[in-house]
Amino acid sequence: MSILEQTISAIQPVDRAIEPAVRAHLDNLTKPQGSLGELEDLAVQYCLITGSTKPQLAKKRILVFAADHGVADEGISAFPKAVTAQMVHNMLEGGAAINVLARHAGAEVSVVDMGVETPLEEAPGLIGRPIGPGTANIAKGPAMTEKEAHQALETGIDLAREAKADGVHILGTGDMGIANTTPSTALLAALLPANPEAITGYGTGIDEATLARKTEVIRRALDVNSDSLHDPIQCLAALGGFEIAGITGLVLGAAAMKIPAVIDGFISSAAALTACAIAPHARGYLYFSHCSAEKGHRLFLEKFNARPILDLNLRLGEGTGAALAITIIQAAVNIYNEMATFTSAGVSENT
Amino acid sequence: MSILEQTISAIQPVDRAIEPAVRAHLDNLTKPQGSLGELEDLAVQYCLITGSTKPQLAKKRILVFAADHGVADEGISAFPKAVTAQMVHNMLEGGAAINVLARHAGAEVSVVDMGVETPLEEAPGLIGRPIGPGTANIAKGPAMTEKEAHQALETGIDLAREAKADGVHILGTGDMGIANTTPSTALLAALLPANPEAITGYGTGIDEATLARKTEVIRRALDVNSDSLHDPIQCLAALGGFEIAGITGLVLGAAAMKIPAVIDGFISSAAALTACAIAPHARGYLYFSHCSAEKGHRLFLEKFNARPILDLNLRLGEGTGAALAITIIQAAVNIYNEMATFTSAGVSENT
Repeated sequence: MSILEQTISAIQPVDRAIEPAVRAHLDNLTKPQGSLGELEDLAVQYCLITGSTKPQLAKKRILVFAADHGVADEGISAFPKAVTAQMVHNMLEGGAAINVLARHAGAEVSVVDMGVETPLEEAPGLIGRPIGPGTANIAKGPAMTEKEAHQALETGIDLAREAKADGVHILGTGDMGIANTTPSTALLAALLPANPEAITGYGTGIDEATLARKTEVIRRALDVNSDSLHDPIQCLAALGGFEIAGITGLVLGAAAMKIPAVIDGFISSAAALTACAIAPHARGYLYFSHCSAEKGHRLFLEKFNARPILDLNLRLGEGTGAALAITIIQAAVNIYNEMATFTSAGVSENT
Repeated sequence: MSILEQTISAIQPVDRAIEPAVRAHLDNLTKPQGSLGELEDLAVQYCLITGSTKPQLAKKRILVFAADHGVADEGISAFPKAVTAQMVHNMLEGGAAINVLARHAGAEVSVVDMGVETPLEEAPGLIGRPIGPGTANIAKGPAMTEKEAHQALETGIDLAREAKADGVHILGTGDMGIANTTPSTALLAALLPANPEAITGYGTGIDEATLARKTEVIRRALDVNSDSLHDPIQCLAALGGFEIAGITGLVLGAAAMKIPAVIDGFISSAAALTACAIAPHARGYLYFSHCSAEKGHRLFLEKFNARPILDLNLRLGEGTGAALAITIIQAAVNIYNEMATFTSAGVSENT
């Protein structure tokens, strides 16, 4: 079996055996039962994923997958392609939003070069795993070969395994790739499924004319690749991007390794949807960090029955929503671990 | 002029003079303009309140105002009155939810005894300012005299002044007081205004029969105190609680001192509404931390045109929502202070 096949077959439903013990512990803490709402649910999910009634959450890692996209040639982004590499440099220097928010969350950040057009020199914090110098234009054919898709998926899986070996307790996903809302929207349209009009949005801030062109490009991508949309991995190869496939692999690897994975926004959600189409049980290992301002995200979350932790109108990507949500998950785990019980604190229970 | 009068007259509208400079700085950071959504708005508000284009957010303080309520005698809470003092002890020992979440936010916590029935011994972290051993039963008459209301308001103001003197950058409100959703609901009903049925909720977890009794008690409280509901301070004296009046004073003092104040949930919102009825310009100095699961809170937020930072189905009080929201406000201020600019990072701006 390939690493991909091994990983898919290793993904089991989240084991709920310890749920009664976990909920009993939460109910014995000095607060009215259930009064910490979703914070309690986040803690329960964390315990179940990790299989522990004494959960640890110290080592946090955010992986920002970066790549370029042939479809950028269609003029559907507000920024030029060169910005992908420039922003990777900015991240390696610590000046991007994800660096600020990861520091705040106490998480490490690494950038994975999955296929940035501009060659990147080795640097601390950069993991070089390029599949190629960017994908082909999805409006004209498949983004990548199936072999490339497998390679990208296995890169993500490999990074999840590495995280496990390093003792990482939680993973956050991030993305950087000029034009990547276009392949992400195409993937969501194919796999959710949804009408391109209903989910195509302004990305980094395009105007109405560009939005119309972008919608048309997505429609064309679905059309020229229509033979490849029935299988999720073929669909990923046809419509995706190297960074999207990398995130998809990371999600699969995290689920196989029972590491909680915090999904960032729109791009990461397209990857998460793809991962769950490949291995449905992966769903239980995911936190959805926030509802993005990017048009299709709320519809995705509703259709996927995912309750986002935050709803702050973010639309940046990079893992920024994941980093913020990790601070809330940390709060939930701390509540579970650090609060006094009714007995230990000598507090009367409800009458 | 009394301290209260001085404070009210010192509350000015938030000065927006530096807003263009603050927004220009945010727009020059390496991200698409506006792509950090509400995080950017939180940062703008922070800069405007504190009047600084180089905002500092290091010293954070949460004050939990505790008191007992005569109306608890009507049997409208799931917990006995003795729990107020027990939970204060738990907070002083560091075992309550607010302790866990304040540690996570890097905030100090103190408990202010505004009138807990069980006498409390001096302890580190306890600020003893009791007005009396709990309020009178609002279902039978006013909760407190107007003189007591002034004393409680000035206690809150005094604590805001002390925070200013201590160099505190942000204040969070919190409450502890068995039965205190009842006076809070009565205050909201009178000042919002709203029908008691529409906003009376389950508090710490009462059953349907108790909910019906609680609604009836609130209706009676509004009826027997109907002569006092036209002036916000008289209304506070008639329907409030010592801790609610203390929080109201803290909000007024924070606004006068230009300290951002993070309003916790349902109880603190009743206090914030009262403060804004007394001094409408106080509104601009407030962050609303979250939308509580307590029934009337969403309606309050809508009517008050307040967008909560979080919506996690919390209904605990203590300042837990404020503590969590402070971690998000910290993220916003860090973004403002720590991100690279397009120029410094050599990143191309949008085309």
